[in-house]
Amino acid sequence: MELALNEFDLIEKFFVPLAGPEGLGLKDDAAHFSPPPGFDLIVTKDAMVEGVHFPDGEYGAQIAERLLRVNLSDLAAKGASPRGYLLSLAWPRHLPVYSIEAFAKGLKSIQKKFALSLWGGDTVATPGPLVISATLIGVCPEGMACKRFGAKPDDDIWVTGHIGKGFVGLSSLSHPKGPQRPRDYFYKPAPRLELQRILRAWANASIDVSDGFVADLDHLAKASHLAMSVEVSDHLWPSEISEKSLALPETVPSLLTHGDDYEILFTAHADQRALIHEACETFLFPVTRIGKCHLGEGVSVTYKGKKLKFEQTGYSHFKS
Amino acid sequence: MELALNEFDLIEKFFVPLAGPEGLGLKDDAAHFSPPPGFDLIVTKDAMVEGVHFPDGEYGAQIAERLLRVNLSDLAAKGASPRGYLLSLAWPRHLPVYSIEAFAKGLKSIQKKFALSLWGGDTVATPGPLVISATLIGVCPEGMACKRFGAKPDDDIWVTGHIGKGFVGLSSLSHPKGPQRPRDYFYKPAPRLELQRILRAWANASIDVSDGFVADLDHLAKASHLAMSVEVSDHLWPSEISEKSLALPETVPSLLTHGDDYEILFTAHADQRALIHEACETFLFPVTRIGKCHLGEGVSVTYKGKKLKFEQTGYSHFKS
Repeated sequence: MELALNEFDLIEKFFVPLAGPEGLGLKDDAAHFSPPPGFDLIVTKDAMVEGVHFPDGEYGAQIAERLLRVNLSDLAAKGASPRGYLLSLAWPRHLPVYSIEAFAKGLKSIQKKFALSLWGGDTVATPGPLVISATLIGVCPEGMACKRFGAKPDDDIWVTGHIGKGFVGLSSLSHPKGPQRPRDYFYKPAPRLELQRILRAWANASIDVSDGFVADLDHLAKASHLAMSVEVSDHLWPSEISEKSLALPETVPSLLTHGDDYEILFTAHADQRALIHEACETFLFPVTRIGKCHLGEGVSVTYKGKKLKFEQTGYSHFKS
Repeated sequence: MELALNEFDLIEKFFVPLAGPEGLGLKDDAAHFSPPPGFDLIVTKDAMVEGVHFPDGEYGAQIAERLLRVNLSDLAAKGASPRGYLLSLAWPRHLPVYSIEAFAKGLKSIQKKFALSLWGGDTVATPGPLVISATLIGVCPEGMACKRFGAKPDDDIWVTGHIGKGFVGLSSLSHPKGPQRPRDYFYKPAPRLELQRILRAWANASIDVSDGFVADLDHLAKASHLAMSVEVSDHLWPSEISEKSLALPETVPSLLTHGDDYEILFTAHADQRALIHEACETFLFPVTRIGKCHLGEGVSVTYKGKKLKFEQTGYSHFKS
């Protein structure tokens, strides 16, 4: 009996080459994974919608990269080592099936870079915009994963890298002939997986900056039932932010609330300062001590000696 | 600082009550799960689109139920015990946020029935149709999960329950005042989790009937590089199929190729026959021995002494 089911053909052509042994060649109902003894499993899932999380009409490699990188950032924030992922694609039915090839190339490049493999998922057709989601699975030595709660009073507050990259990245999309780096902020955010050793060993609580720096700081404070005060200064912004734009009153609030920065906010005891600085130097990206945890509630953000106020602290999909 | 992020409010209101300890109150970047020592992890992910997998304009409890039940069927086919799930919702932005409440009620009822909990996920707004996906995580004693490959020549082929329930279920949607049971075939397919002990102990290969009985039999045959011949008879169809409709030439092929039956096809050595029959009697659903595996390739389906031919063997999202 001859079968001509092109859904299976496309899986065979584009996705089977990406499958790890856990995925059983994508020919089973489910992935099978034997977790290494003494390790916990860390699992996260994020979805993206065409026209909401990335521009209308984009279906290529860079969308696949962004999806996996954003999910990897969640694993990075917990100190986990990524192992594999399951993918669901609701692919617009007006597109030719071979258009999935470019998307699969983006997956392949991320798999190679971050030593991941595809374990399974589902590909369906939709009359609407492209909707994609990935479930990332990582491992962490038992009890060593860093949680959002767990900050202690008097902990230092640290942040990696630069805040406002998400804002700069999104703005750059309206200037397609502009430089590449800001576009990479959007399409190729760098999950801070190098922070793994620090988070496992010394951090008391951590979160990645995805909703917005202020919103995520607030999540961190609320989760530990503490107040957090930080002081931000101009060296935190990406180099694309000019002095002229910093002079505009809306710039700093935008940098601090836009989100999509994929840096890590974490807290640690003051005794760990030297160790954290030393370890971070080897990663070649900055880590900055920006504040303290206190008894109480709420967050306070100071810039140039003034306490900032925010109309909104981050992005929300649903408004009242 | 006052926060009014209604995305977080809705998660707090509808989803936090569903969270298991692994989900950390849905307040972390990822779920944390310590797998029991000596168990493998079985992971599956299926997506559904409004207007494709269920009728346009349906957003209620029964859609949530169907999503989880269909994913549970994949775990059932592997002999796994479900533990938790991650959910992604791309919710139409024209709907009021409180419309998620009914959906969440469906999740709750399935969680209770199957001892599952919510571990995490993502809720986003979409300008298109509702797109939902669930990643189900189950466990199985190390090496005991049943795979799609592994059938041996001369194995018996078995199938649980009735074939054609998906076809009857979908047809019933156009008669909203008809009886409830056919609608339940569509919205409440029963994942055959009771088959766990049989699959782990005696089955050599297994698959759930989701793409279509003939297509799934073909998947099973191909995965083990064997030929499979089965004989189907009228007691396999659901009781809604009348003698009159069986007289129509298109009925039996439709029952055998529509899919969405969520029964389990499996193979086992002939020595296990009595044990399988005895064990299945305790589940109060039928299990039928329908054929044999042979050296060779391809599948053959006989009905009333005649070999059936099929124009297509199952559903495909993408056509050439």
